[in-house]
Amino acid sequence: MFKLYYAPGTCALATHIALEEAAAPYEAVAVDFGSQAQRSSEYLAINPKGRVPALVTERGTLTETPALLCFVAQRFPEADLAPLADPLALAQVQEFNSYLCSTVHVAHAHGRRGARWADDPAAIDAMKRKVPSTMTECFELIEGKLLKGPWVMGERYTICDPYLFTIGSWLEGDRVDTTKLPRVMEHRRRMLARPAVRKAVAISDTRIP
Amino acid sequence: MFKLYYAPGTCALATHIALEEAAAPYEAVAVDFGSQAQRSSEYLAINPKGRVPALVTERGTLTETPALLCFVAQRFPEADLAPLADPLALAQVQEFNSYLCSTVHVAHAHGRRGARWADDPAAIDAMKRKVPSTMTECFELIEGKLLKGPWVMGERYTICDPYLFTIGSWLEGDRVDTTKLPRVMEHRRRMLARPAVRKAVAISDTRIP
Repeated sequence: MFKLYYAPGTCALATHIALEEAAAPYEAVAVDFGSQAQRSSEYLAINPKGRVPALVTERGTLTETPALLCFVAQRFPEADLAPLADPLALAQVQEFNSYLCSTVHVAHAHGRRGARWADDPAAIDAMKRKVPSTMTECFELIEGKLLKGPWVMGERYTICDPYLFTIGSWLEGDRVDTTKLPRVMEHRRRMLARPAVRKAVAISDTRIP
Repeated sequence: MFKLYYAPGTCALATHIALEEAAAPYEAVAVDFGSQAQRSSEYLAINPKGRVPALVTERGTLTETPALLCFVAQRFPEADLAPLADPLALAQVQEFNSYLCSTVHVAHAHGRRGARWADDPAAIDAMKRKVPSTMTECFELIEGKLLKGPWVMGERYTICDPYLFTIGSWLEGDRVDTTKLPRVMEHRRRMLARPAVRKAVAISDTRIP
């Protein structure tokens, strides 16, 4: 039985959905960001980075969404969540997820976590102001080139889909004009039609716009 | 024959080393950042993100370092660059590389690419000032917890090693006190003893401090 440490509205939802898709045995454990529980000594003993998600497995704790998603796909191959045996196709899956974690999630984080990268309050405000344009730029690339449709990788549902859905759920909060992103919005609707997605959204108490 | 698009001093070096370790057939093609060649229409046709690395393969172009490293490991399994068949061990490899791309590389980038996240010159300066402390914090975690030694994953050399070596080569430029990082520095020396590393460093014209 795995333990998934998560907080509502975070990227932990992507792993949560993947675990549901794989019918993996897991327990979801909320980390209360309101009381800064992610910075408590108890939680830092689980994940020294002080973030979510963290997945406690029978052989140790894993963090970082792209790694967790690939782990779920490889550990539960019968769920068919990634083209595991095809190096190029798997690399395309990882390329997309790596873009989400290193560029898109980072663009979003400048709206709420600017103190990670500057101490000056005016600088933190300046970062906040730019989030709508950086997130728009990222999602224009996704809309126009990266999202093959109907799923991210085309006809086949993969671990890219829960991750796009999760980060895409931040668009309205980041003041991105989603009417310019019809394919991304169609992807969101298609995701919400999946029972595994609805279940993970409900358990994690996440609001999807 | 692959084509690796790179620029000196960038994270493309990690993939470059992995290709050398795997004895992969490739040609290295320099992208001249001095003349902003990464923004030319020719290069954007290869990589619409306008960055390096990009690896042109017989079945399409790949980007994003963690994806490229895993691709090289899986495509050339005889080089034994990753624990491909063990989901947890492979996830640990990806977890480390994902941390490098989404947190450590991003911390570094605030010193040179602040304009990605704010328009105000004072904000860009404020980001620059924080780089020594954010990079120090990242590398304290690597030094103290993540780098198992002698290689990142312990006794076995993996695709984590070229990536750590590459990002670690930025420490002095980011004004991090490397005397506090003896294990990371020992890792650098151990890397420089490998012929594949020396060859990729020489071809890519990279200065290692």
